[in-house]
Amino acid sequence: QCDLTGWWENDLGSKMRVYAVDSQGNFSGEYYTAVSSTQKPIKPSPLLGSQHLDEDGQCTFGFAVNWKKFSDSMAVFVGQCFAGDDGEEVLQTAWLLREKVDSLPSNWKATR
Amino acid sequence: QCDLTGWWENDLGSKMRVYAVDSQGNFSGEYYTAVSSTQKPIKPSPLLGSQHLDEDGQCTFGFAVNWKKFSDSMAVFVGQCFAGDDGEEVLQTAWLLREKVDSLPSNWKATR
Amino acid sequence: QCDLTGWWENDLGSKMRVYAVDSQGNFSGEYYTAVSSTQKPIKPSPLLGSQHLDEDGQCTFGFAVNWKKFSDSMAVFVGQCFAGDDGEEVLQTAWLLREKVDSLPSNWKATR
Amino acid sequence: QCDLTGWWENDLGSKMRVYAVDSQGNFSGEYYTAVSSTQKPIKPSPLLGSQHLDEDGQCTFGFAVNWKKFSDSMAVFVGQCFAGDDGEEVLQTAWLLREKVDSLPSNWKATR
Repeated sequence: QCDLTGWWENDLGSKMRVYAVDSQGNFSGEYYTAVSSTQKPIKPSPLLGSQHLDEDGQCTFGFAVNWKKFSDSMAVFVGQCFAGDDGEEVLQTAWLLREKVDSLPSNWKATR
Repeated sequence: QCDLTGWWENDLGSKMRVYAVDSQGNFSGEYYTAVSSTQKPIKPSPLLGSQHLDEDGQCTFGFAVNWKKFSDSMAVFVGQCFAGDDGEEVLQTAWLLREKVDSLPSNWKATR
Repeated sequence: QCDLTGWWENDLGSKMRVYAVDSQGNFSGEYYTAVSSTQKPIKPSPLLGSQHLDEDGQCTFGFAVNWKKFSDSMAVFVGQCFAGDDGEEVLQTAWLLREKVDSLPSNWKATR
Repeated sequence: QCDLTGWWENDLGSKMRVYAVDSQGNFSGEYYTAVSSTQKPIKPSPLLGSQHLDEDGQCTFGFAVNWKKFSDSMAVFVGQCFAGDDGEEVLQTAWLLREKVDSLPSNWKATR
């Protein structure tokens, strides 16, 4: 069965830790980003999300990361778990980063 | 202060209800989508996310929606709260939808 | 038949002019953006793209805008033409903006 | 100087050929996609786009691909050229695919 519990690392060196997945598929954890647009020192950031509980091990999932310890931005990730060539689990994800902007006319540039 | 608690509706007629925002900015709720790619009947879907707690009322936020009651997809939303022209609060959001695919080579088409 | 030739304006006040669509569906034109992340004065920017030539008036299209007169960024737009409620043609588009970054490790933040 | 002329291949096995870049940075070419959502046989598809002409070899670029030979979709790509670890040039790109939908209310699902 699909279970995101544990440590994961991406190509850029960012890591995340999912504490435990409950019976609804909900989970919390911490995200250790290796990259940032701010000048402030990076700190582990709380994440909260949810996964499907499919038996095939290829569940989709999504979570939000609150960078509140060093930034007023938010990020969301959505993806799916796969078995890689070597049998190891691989997560394929896409993300959106929302930066805070001062006013509605600047909204167009807030998301990357 | 910024607080997402309550009901929100978007241009397409989808609604969401945020139950309560805790002292960390975390919240849960339900998303009532008006649109879907599946043939199955749409049902309210649990959401889980987080917001900043800025005093200026323009907080950024993010959340994940698990469509498990009628689909094996996940969605994530990220956005910011603004005061609209008439003083009412407006949410500006971007989203990603992840559909489940059978295998890694099909991953390119899974996210919209 | 679908034809993008002419002037178009978006919600933010940006305008574009498509000169003429050739028999292959290719076109050139100019984009007058109302918004920019740079401090430099905005200037009309050349665009180049292509559309389908469907008879139903609901063609999809795509084009690239080169901001070279005031920026080292590029933007791409992709969308579809529809007839609006009042019979007028409406373009629905999505876009990506690519900013130039110094090195490969900064690539993650270059697109919005 | 940055020049996209020539053959390029991505991780999924898709290839593109840029014929020649003119003095304005405009180019045409063909895209040989390795992946498709349609059942019809894939054929080389015309592309049209533009690049900056920076001296540092790290230009940004964008182009549109018209799949008209087997689909009513359009795709746009935007990216930047980098020198890879081994000195070879690498393109980093992001893309959007626009599928044709029947009506405006279905617009939300048209882009991936």
